[in-house]
Amino acid sequence: MSIFEGFLSTPEAIEAFGDAQFVAAMLRFESALARAQARAGLIPEAAAQTIADTCKVDLFDVPQIVRDSGRAGSVAIPLVAKLKENVALFNASAVQHVHFGSTSQDVIDTAMALVSKQGLRLIEADLIRAIDALFTLAEKHAATPILARTLMQPASVTSFGLKCVNWVAPLVRSLLRLRAASSAALAVQLGGAVGTLSTLNGAGAQVVQSMSEELGLAAHSSAWHTQRDQWLALACELALMVGSLGKIGQDIALMGQFEVGELAEPTEAGRGGSTAMPHKRNPVASMTAKAAAQRAPQRLAALLATMPHEHERALGAWQAELAEWPGLMVTAHGSVRAMATALEGLQVFEARMRGNIDNLVAQVPEQTAQEWFSVDLAQNAARITLAQVKELKGLRASYE
Amino acid sequence: MSIFEGFLSTPEAIEAFGDAQFVAAMLRFESALARAQARAGLIPEAAAQTIADTCKVDLFDVPQIVRDSGRAGSVAIPLVAKLKENVALFNASAVQHVHFGSTSQDVIDTAMALVSKQGLRLIEADLIRAIDALFTLAEKHAATPILARTLMQPASVTSFGLKCVNWVAPLVRSLLRLRAASSAALAVQLGGAVGTLSTLNGAGAQVVQSMSEELGLAAHSSAWHTQRDQWLALACELALMVGSLGKIGQDIALMGQFEVGELAEPTEAGRGGSTAMPHKRNPVASMTAKAAAQRAPQRLAALLATMPHEHERALGAWQAELAEWPGLMVTAHGSVRAMATALEGLQVFEARMRGNIDNLVAQVPEQTAQEWFSVDLAQNAARITLAQVKELKGLRASYE
Amino acid sequence: MSIFEGFLSTPEAIEAFGDAQFVAAMLRFESALARAQARAGLIPEAAAQTIADTCKVDLFDVPQIVRDSGRAGSVAIPLVAKLKENVALFNASAVQHVHFGSTSQDVIDTAMALVSKQGLRLIEADLIRAIDALFTLAEKHAATPILARTLMQPASVTSFGLKCVNWVAPLVRSLLRLRAASSAALAVQLGGAVGTLSTLNGAGAQVVQSMSEELGLAAHSSAWHTQRDQWLALACELALMVGSLGKIGQDIALMGQFEVGELAEPTEAGRGGSTAMPHKRNPVASMTAKAAAQRAPQRLAALLATMPHEHERALGAWQAELAEWPGLMVTAHGSVRAMATALEGLQVFEARMRGNIDNLVAQVPEQTAQEWFSVDLAQNAARITLAQVKELKGLRASYE
Amino acid sequence: MSIFEGFLSTPEAIEAFGDAQFVAAMLRFESALARAQARAGLIPEAAAQTIADTCKVDLFDVPQIVRDSGRAGSVAIPLVAKLKENVALFNASAVQHVHFGSTSQDVIDTAMALVSKQGLRLIEADLIRAIDALFTLAEKHAATPILARTLMQPASVTSFGLKCVNWVAPLVRSLLRLRAASSAALAVQLGGAVGTLSTLNGAGAQVVQSMSEELGLAAHSSAWHTQRDQWLALACELALMVGSLGKIGQDIALMGQFEVGELAEPTEAGRGGSTAMPHKRNPVASMTAKAAAQRAPQRLAALLATMPHEHERALGAWQAELAEWPGLMVTAHGSVRAMATALEGLQVFEARMRGNIDNLVAQVPEQTAQEWFSVDLAQNAARITLAQVKELKGLRASYE
Repeated sequence: MSIFEGFLSTPEAIEAFGDAQFVAAMLRFESALARAQARAGLIPEAAAQTIADTCKVDLFDVPQIVRDSGRAGSVAIPLVAKLKENVALFNASAVQHVHFGSTSQDVIDTAMALVSKQGLRLIEADLIRAIDALFTLAEKHAATPILARTLMQPASVTSFGLKCVNWVAPLVRSLLRLRAASSAALAVQLGGAVGTLSTLNGAGAQVVQSMSEELGLAAHSSAWHTQRDQWLALACELALMVGSLGKIGQDIALMGQFEVGELAEPTEAGRGGSTAMPHKRNPVASMTAKAAAQRAPQRLAALLATMPHEHERALGAWQAELAEWPGLMVTAHGSVRAMATALEGLQVFEARMRGNIDNLVAQVPEQTAQEWFSVDLAQNAARITLAQVKELKGLRASYE
Repeated sequence: MSIFEGFLSTPEAIEAFGDAQFVAAMLRFESALARAQARAGLIPEAAAQTIADTCKVDLFDVPQIVRDSGRAGSVAIPLVAKLKENVALFNASAVQHVHFGSTSQDVIDTAMALVSKQGLRLIEADLIRAIDALFTLAEKHAATPILARTLMQPASVTSFGLKCVNWVAPLVRSLLRLRAASSAALAVQLGGAVGTLSTLNGAGAQVVQSMSEELGLAAHSSAWHTQRDQWLALACELALMVGSLGKIGQDIALMGQFEVGELAEPTEAGRGGSTAMPHKRNPVASMTAKAAAQRAPQRLAALLATMPHEHERALGAWQAELAEWPGLMVTAHGSVRAMATALEGLQVFEARMRGNIDNLVAQVPEQTAQEWFSVDLAQNAARITLAQVKELKGLRASYE
Repeated sequence: MSIFEGFLSTPEAIEAFGDAQFVAAMLRFESALARAQARAGLIPEAAAQTIADTCKVDLFDVPQIVRDSGRAGSVAIPLVAKLKENVALFNASAVQHVHFGSTSQDVIDTAMALVSKQGLRLIEADLIRAIDALFTLAEKHAATPILARTLMQPASVTSFGLKCVNWVAPLVRSLLRLRAASSAALAVQLGGAVGTLSTLNGAGAQVVQSMSEELGLAAHSSAWHTQRDQWLALACELALMVGSLGKIGQDIALMGQFEVGELAEPTEAGRGGSTAMPHKRNPVASMTAKAAAQRAPQRLAALLATMPHEHERALGAWQAELAEWPGLMVTAHGSVRAMATALEGLQVFEARMRGNIDNLVAQVPEQTAQEWFSVDLAQNAARITLAQVKELKGLRASYE
Repeated sequence: MSIFEGFLSTPEAIEAFGDAQFVAAMLRFESALARAQARAGLIPEAAAQTIADTCKVDLFDVPQIVRDSGRAGSVAIPLVAKLKENVALFNASAVQHVHFGSTSQDVIDTAMALVSKQGLRLIEADLIRAIDALFTLAEKHAATPILARTLMQPASVTSFGLKCVNWVAPLVRSLLRLRAASSAALAVQLGGAVGTLSTLNGAGAQVVQSMSEELGLAAHSSAWHTQRDQWLALACELALMVGSLGKIGQDIALMGQFEVGELAEPTEAGRGGSTAMPHKRNPVASMTAKAAAQRAPQRLAALLATMPHEHERALGAWQAELAEWPGLMVTAHGSVRAMATALEGLQVFEARMRGNIDNLVAQVPEQTAQEWFSVDLAQNAARITLAQVKELKGLRASYE
């Protein structure tokens, strides 16, 4: 919504959760519902056909539906009303079969799962870019000596490759955990008015299964109207990924300081400039990842705070969840896109890495220098780095 | 951004923080800056005139500026670039005076203050509506007996008027504290590249004062690039107000339960319906206030978490703050608008209030009934109610 | 720390994370480290024996260690210093082998994993109690009609058993996910000064494996000093569980309102009283679960906000994580203990459930009553209930 | 509670919010209540005398009261019960006058205000230390040139004095705002069972006024059982102060990096060491301030999330507030104490500040160096610094 929200995100992610895409996803639900119900003999085939044919987003005035949702207290109400109007133009007898046996939450939750699936596709694609870039860096710099720093002070010597391993390992795990979490979270919602599917004559499971196949979503064995744990477990995974990316952005920003000078984000015309200072080149990818890591925990807290839904559908909690959810997704994509871009073109200044060690050695007692700051210590780090990259590549391969 | 964000907010608030309004506010800054600098003799009068004439939002392609901001890492960069292009069309010699002595953060922070001023106007107008509605309810029902409930169980008897007093008192204080907080928070930002205004030849204070008068914002005695306490103190006030409104929404929702039946939100066609159940009338105003009260604390946490800006301008923290800020404002307006509407048309069912007491009395020992559940206890509450309303009206009057 | 922190938690959980238990866990680490290093030939067997013999919490002045930690900036520093002093009393030559090759974070992270393991034992035991109590309730009340309520208004009829299914299903999944998350999270930490185990001559993996067996913790293939994703994924699971329990507490509190009267928490002398009102019986278990559900999301946010550790050990972020972690654990145990107790003795008032339906039916048009509020609708719910309980019992069994 | 909570706080603050101090504060309430009621003629003078004489914390088994509070659901219940027992030993007829007309929330909220008053005394004392240390640094280094850095990259030249001004200005405002907020927040709570003081025969205001004088707390004109805005506005101020201190800690940590070397925290034996690396000297004060700044926003969010209290006393929300409150206070004291200590002994390395500028100048084009990195630019900063210090000292003086 805000100019700065978009700024820390990506155009693709914002579009994926935009009004038009959401209305289109709601229509995919209504179409799949009608077709599944026809297959189950619950509504006439012809009615289902008309409904499915009418579920085209171009036939709907999206901004009007959004405007009407405020008063109605639900975006599904104006959508279903308009769908019925449109269906009536073609087949008056089909109107009664629109949205049959379903309720607002069914269409909205399913639509959110559908647009989230697209959001996750974007996220995973960039996550893989970041991972592969880090594998390359880790291998190339497995033995490149660099100061290890603890509590913001020089501690000993490690290798830049091992730093990359510490960056990439959580991302590889995120990739695997995101897949597991989304396979449970991205599910058809269909419970009817209160979760009992009472009007479907016992054909509920069949309808859900059929919709699941058409929509490419999981089919749970019961409605999850008020059971938000699997859905929000996916949000947890996104927040964890954003935290791990934030650590990378944090380190790049620190190592990119003028006085440290060990890394720089890729140079590109128009990137990271300043209105006042022509000499500035700002690490905007790290900025994005750091900003996301400050925001995502609060988004997740807002989502989890809504969990105590009242009874069979919450007053306020569910709606707050819906409003917070896209923000987490687009923030996550902003972060992973930024880091993928930065890591693929990362400039590594080995001489400065070495120079910082040399400067330190010149200032500490000789014994300390020998024990803690010998560049030979990078060899230990190299062994770990290569073993870890091998192991992590195996994990990464299991994702394909 | 999301369809549901808008849903829990208001069209006016969303517009106030929209891209077009923000770009317009940035242009107001650039225009005021140029004019103030001309008055101070820092730039030629003619240049200032051209710049001011060119600072019209219709001359700018807002979506393009937004798109370009991502790569630049700042929305000010494409704006200033485009402003220079536009100025060049009219007066090539004025280009060098565009944005003179200023930096991205100056224009962005000031623009955010300008749009926030409009946001606060909306919020205060609805806050006054809610307050006045509650004064009326409190006086009318000063002595209307109602069960007092503690820990969700009947405790004794109070009056509905006193409940209204407990609702309105925090709102009156919010009104006063919002004014105080915004008079400190809504200030011109002008520090130049690093907060020293080094290019303004000592005329910084004069320029800030002049801009302050033109823009209707406070003039601080130094730049607040990294001093975010006054700015975020305003955010704190908004979050407190949302919390107080959430308590009202919570109580209305509880008292509006079918089994309790003491209150109902106003009835209006198309309001609070259901796609599945024609008999439903949902308390959508309470929904909005409750949702806001779950979300605002997290927004505030996100804002406060950004406070440790690095050095003279933060990498990530400032940008995250900018992105979070409008969300808090629009959520706050959604909440106060919803409660103002609900309270102005609130349906009060005195008979049910009395009936719930009677039902309770029928179930407790006689002595308990006499000691704790006599309707005469409402008289104590009435005295407090009337005294409090008088005092609060005095406070409210001090706001005018 | 605070009197009210304890109040919403349990004595067992508070003890599990108490100073004495933590110091004891740190000593278990030091003992296991020495023994593993002796087995690997890194230190003399006799030295390891002395160290292990000295690692008894009774030999340490716990409050003094806590006091000294403030100045040192680490609780490990005074512990290791005191351990060396104690070892010196028995075997001066063993002192140099104390804490060999290890660093503060190794001992602290491992100790936190050890005390968390005990915390999880407590949580899982009560979680199973809650689950089993809900299975019993679900089966008993599979067909007991009750109003289904959406957005805090009557919507239709469901069964109390299906409400119990919606409560228990997330808990069963939490049980399984907690086990998976803790098997990854509860791991030995051993990286030495900067994560390279450079002083262990390549025997690092062997030492970790050996410690893992002795301590009953996982052995990761590398140190996780700055890779906090698996550790915090466990925190996410706890927060999800607390959210699911909060929903139960929310519903019990609502259904236990005097005017609704469908449920009551178990009666017990001294439970839920009032200093002022002898007639009060407050639902204190629901209070605890609701309070936990408001607090846990913020704890999790605090934990996730720390993820961007700087370099090889964070300044502030790691320490904040350590301080927040136990709070989430004890809050989680408070919540699950409260709900287990409430659910095992839950009082179910079927007549009031029926009476509320009857009252509703008396107020709506006959057709609405027939379509939406027939008690026969509970039969659909019953079928789902029994199928779900069967499926969930299967899942539950897979945990044993 | 946790060993690490204490670690990031101070012994004094932990003691101020400890069990014994809280029980003592509750007894101060009960004593003041009885004496005020005697003065108002509501209870016999002799009874009040006995009650007041018995309200000595040494007569109470504090751990037992804490243990009993869990089952009761309130810490006030076992306290009042025990107080009655103790009073009965001396004057049986006085027992009925113990806690007369009051309720749990009265004694607990007032006790929390009392212990918070002591907490604020600690905080303000250290805040003044930090402010005065910064005034001294700002004046001494008003013209000391230093690189100004934006988005973590060198931007231009400022003075170290102006950095200190940007640090101190928010602290001075915090000092003033804390005083204003606490004068409204630290108030007697007295509403009786449901906020109507129905048993005090209209003498409520007189009793509150009298207690206010004895306890040194404000007397509001009505109970604030459910009106938490003024109370939580104080929490907001604490969180803002912690954020401003976090910015100082952030900057000190960055400027204290080996490669930057412009500042160091004071050296002291045993401070900031390492179990593994004898050469380490860690900036533990900055660590504490940074950790606090990551935690406080979440504490505040937890507090604000509780605002929607239900009816006349919340189920869960109030109790969660009580549990979160002390954590924010002790964290705030930990942060301000750490920064006061660090700033009073801060080591400033002017030569390195100059050296970093020189290094930069050697790497940029000559024109950029002249325009942006001339050490003469520090003169602008010096003028602002001295004017600001003067203004801020005036503000600071208004606090005395």
